[in-house]
Amino acid sequence: MHEVSSDLIIDLLRQRGVKLIDIADIVKNLQQQYYEDISIEYCLDNILKVLNKREVQHAILTGIELDILAEQGKLSQPLGNIILRDEPLYGIDEILVMSIVNVYGSIGFTNYGYLDKLKPGIIGQLDQHTTDKHRCHTFLDDLIGAIAAAAASRIAHRHGK
Amino acid sequence: MHEVSSDLIIDLLRQRGVKLIDIADIVKNLQQQYYEDISIEYCLDNILKVLNKREVQHAILTGIELDILAEQGKLSQPLGNIILRDEPLYGIDEILVMSIVNVYGSIGFTNYGYLDKLKPGIIGQLDQHTTDKHRCHTFLDDLIGAIAAAAASRIAHRHGK
Amino acid sequence: MHEVSSDLIIDLLRQRGVKLIDIADIVKNLQQQYYEDISIEYCLDNILKVLNKREVQHAILTGIELDILAEQGKLSQPLGNIILRDEPLYGIDEILVMSIVNVYGSIGFTNYGYLDKLKPGIIGQLDQHTTDKHRCHTFLDDLIGAIAAAAASRIAHRHGK
Amino acid sequence: MHEVSSDLIIDLLRQRGVKLIDIADIVKNLQQQYYEDISIEYCLDNILKVLNKREVQHAILTGIELDILAEQGKLSQPLGNIILRDEPLYGIDEILVMSIVNVYGSIGFTNYGYLDKLKPGIIGQLDQHTTDKHRCHTFLDDLIGAIAAAAASRIAHRHGK
Repeated sequence: MHEVSSDLIIDLLRQRGVKLIDIADIVKNLQQQYYEDISIEYCLDNILKVLNKREVQHAILTGIELDILAEQGKLSQPLGNIILRDEPLYGIDEILVMSIVNVYGSIGFTNYGYLDKLKPGIIGQLDQHTTDKHRCHTFLDDLIGAIAAAAASRIAHRHGK
Repeated sequence: MHEVSSDLIIDLLRQRGVKLIDIADIVKNLQQQYYEDISIEYCLDNILKVLNKREVQHAILTGIELDILAEQGKLSQPLGNIILRDEPLYGIDEILVMSIVNVYGSIGFTNYGYLDKLKPGIIGQLDQHTTDKHRCHTFLDDLIGAIAAAAASRIAHRHGK
Repeated sequence: MHEVSSDLIIDLLRQRGVKLIDIADIVKNLQQQYYEDISIEYCLDNILKVLNKREVQHAILTGIELDILAEQGKLSQPLGNIILRDEPLYGIDEILVMSIVNVYGSIGFTNYGYLDKLKPGIIGQLDQHTTDKHRCHTFLDDLIGAIAAAAASRIAHRHGK
Repeated sequence: MHEVSSDLIIDLLRQRGVKLIDIADIVKNLQQQYYEDISIEYCLDNILKVLNKREVQHAILTGIELDILAEQGKLSQPLGNIILRDEPLYGIDEILVMSIVNVYGSIGFTNYGYLDKLKPGIIGQLDQHTTDKHRCHTFLDDLIGAIAAAAASRIAHRHGK
């Protein structure tokens, strides 16, 4: 069996410009209204638990691979251009991350949709890089939103609200 | 077979305090950034198309029934209180409306989550009624968010973005 | 908060004619082709873990409540008859159990669909009771299929295949 | 906008060894128990309607691309080997096809799971080719099962049962 480790996933995210602390900031902002004194360390810890799930690792590996191949022009057409331009009606990125959002129950959907629409912090910056630096983040921004939403749901489930 | 008509659904929504025009306002606000001159009539027309789907009708009938039974104290415990108090970890309302959000493809998820978090217009008012007037809208506010999200997705699909 | 316990859920299933051992038989049959020497105790243990999840408990409470209310004629029409007759196009039972199937990742979908179509063991017997004894099991048979599918997925995830 | 046509999709399926008539056979077998005199032409017509949906086209393009890249050794490791060997715990193929199964409502889940487990007709043959001819059909067999399940659901919805 091909073991995927959290370390490999964390490295891959870093190579694509995302540090865990950036995701932790988003989680903290999401949950702060419910738990005033939530710490960034606690958010990080919950993100690590999410990244330890095989289903989550597979979604991240697959999504980032498609972003990279689109960037390098290695996808067939018209798929390559659809992903490169992040066409609004291409919904496979949103379906893929359902495998992350689902893991901690349906209360993750709301947080995910909210983040995907408002694009706070690193999610918005990834969007900007797309325009400025010719990077493709069609899957990555959804993945980050889904990881943050799953971590927030995990915290909510632990705390009973 | 028991035919469910759109008229029955529209009546039921009205009895629970929701007019289609209130949902149309939400759809218009969602889509205005993409289509400046979108009319309220066009939004209404798309909502009607959504309400004409059997899957959507079944979700509305089932969700509102649970709200009403909770209000009337006719559900077993602890389910009755869980629904009456809209406990944050009860996620069945969010699962139920997936049958509405799904119908026009995965791009509906984002709009739904956003509306469920920000609760604009009638969605927020339903929340208020819950506190002031002892009504139960645990399922209804999610249903309205899902109908609006589905109608917005339908418009996006027709216009190619 | 209203705590729901596994014991309450196990009692409720028993009142509706389902013993955990019946579900364990289905899980054993599903997984036997992969792990020859899988024991019924191990299957039971995995079912208990599934029943310990809040999301699963909420789905079971809600689905069985709707079955019982339909049986007692306490649901509004046309919803009552739609559920009582288990109309083939009413898909809310299948949506509801997604909250159970989802919990252990997407590999649960296949097992669930298979069980729902073939109706082995207790699932088929529940169907029979519907005809013979005027019981309503519209939600219950899907719930049992979903619990068995989730337990089988849990076993697969532990064993790495 | 990059228009994807049904013709492009039908060509792509043929290049990967799948003719629409093979899918129609599966649909006919699924629906025959409900409609004795269902014709293969009618099944084909419903498959064409399914293949005309943008969401379906995007899922097919993306899944087949991943199969081909895995076959050609062009995916990063460990993802390449995970897909090439169709590792049982890789569930992204099953998540991807949810975007097809969802389109005609939740009654498609059952048919999809059943087909994915029993692998009738062309679905089983694709499996065989994987072993004999070093082809990768990790996504393709799920895609075919999902197209057949969606077409069967579409027929069920039209006929009111």
